[in-house]
Amino acid sequence: MIRLHVQAPLSAGVVMAPDQEQARYLISVMRLGEGDEVALFNGRDGEWRARLGDVTKRGCTLTPIRRTRAQTSPPDLDLVMALVKRSPLERVVEKATELGVGRIRLVTTQRTNADHTNVSRLQAIATEAAEQCGRMEVPQVVAPERLDRLVEAWPASRRLMVCDEAGAEAHDGPDAGAAAPLPALKALNDAQRGAWGVLIGPEGGFDPAERVRLQSCPAVICVTLGPRILRADSAAIAAVTLWQAILGDW
Amino acid sequence: MIRLHVQAPLSAGVVMAPDQEQARYLISVMRLGEGDEVALFNGRDGEWRARLGDVTKRGCTLTPIRRTRAQTSPPDLDLVMALVKRSPLERVVEKATELGVGRIRLVTTQRTNADHTNVSRLQAIATEAAEQCGRMEVPQVVAPERLDRLVEAWPASRRLMVCDEAGAEAHDGPDAGAAAPLPALKALNDAQRGAWGVLIGPEGGFDPAERVRLQSCPAVICVTLGPRILRADSAAIAAVTLWQAILGDW
Repeated sequence: MIRLHVQAPLSAGVVMAPDQEQARYLISVMRLGEGDEVALFNGRDGEWRARLGDVTKRGCTLTPIRRTRAQTSPPDLDLVMALVKRSPLERVVEKATELGVGRIRLVTTQRTNADHTNVSRLQAIATEAAEQCGRMEVPQVVAPERLDRLVEAWPASRRLMVCDEAGAEAHDGPDAGAAAPLPALKALNDAQRGAWGVLIGPEGGFDPAERVRLQSCPAVICVTLGPRILRADSAAIAAVTLWQAILGDW
Repeated sequence: MIRLHVQAPLSAGVVMAPDQEQARYLISVMRLGEGDEVALFNGRDGEWRARLGDVTKRGCTLTPIRRTRAQTSPPDLDLVMALVKRSPLERVVEKATELGVGRIRLVTTQRTNADHTNVSRLQAIATEAAEQCGRMEVPQVVAPERLDRLVEAWPASRRLMVCDEAGAEAHDGPDAGAAAPLPALKALNDAQRGAWGVLIGPEGGFDPAERVRLQSCPAVICVTLGPRILRADSAAIAAVTLWQAILGDW
């Protein structure tokens, strides 16, 4: 069953039109015709079975028939990701969507040297991943901001799990302030469920001033991800996995 | 510091030669010369600082000077991975190496239709990942075998964590026999640390007979990886991460 994310409200019998790209995909690529069914979701009204109508070369209509799943919300988890090269960054967006993060915020740091960011392309990747993995909403991809400004404005009520792999190596051994993730996250009691962020540093690690700044932020909990050096994309997937298994919806 | 995996024994002052490809990399690509230093490991003798000598266009020698790290062993974890498309399979090998699996075994299943496997290329990817992530050994990549034969020969003393994402969806909801990974793995007492495997199914999931077979295998513990459908490569990384954090060396 093809599954599409749409912007329009979804309710029984209320006809809507897919956008041009979606219509092309349904009609020209997947060769669907009058009466064929697809699944639709918009992040608000649950998932609906819908039927194609008025099929022409240029478009079609979609009529929601019945709701197949109720709307749910993902855990309130922001993945805060330092910019890395295009291909691993795109993979992080895809995987983070599958793993169920609520929002993907991009940051630049002292050791970031990437200015390639195409936020609308990343948002399209998140949308496609949400369609394929059965999610009920698409995580927003937020344009890059500077790490120092992000930390300055970080709310005390949102915990921030910081994973600084390359930084650990640069300091010749794991940072003394960093803990194994399982006991560290388990030790937080239920009161600290709720809003969270996971911050993944750039390939070159955080610089010393950034590390000090992060460690002095009351919301921050520093964790290590094992004795080997993970690439930034591996670290992002591993950290979100642990958070989901311990504090999220797994 | 460039880090290379070599076959030769490593001990102080005992001159060895890198292979042709490594020599080309050191001399022509990285432009190293007489007296420059690299790090070497062979999976047996720890990590050594070594010095280049006799540099010509065609090769060089390497002389280990001092041991910089003692040899360690990774946890005894086999990743048993159903064949998937080439690009995600290569990514799994790279990430599994970074995450510290002991061995990567490939399997074919009823719903596998991939016969592209180039084991020596996958082994080269594992070697490069081991060099980059600071591992002290390279995990072996084992050529594909059939799942039914693998299960038949599976030793009772090696627990097997089975993750069957697509299967869960195909059966319209998580499998009743599968558990959340964190409590399931935590419930196993220390006696069940030791030898383990993690089995990741193909994109199409296991077929019903395979599922029954796996569930009846005493070594097997079935776990789910959350309410969304993960691609096989995401599932592999997530499962190994959880195993490492709960039972492994993180």
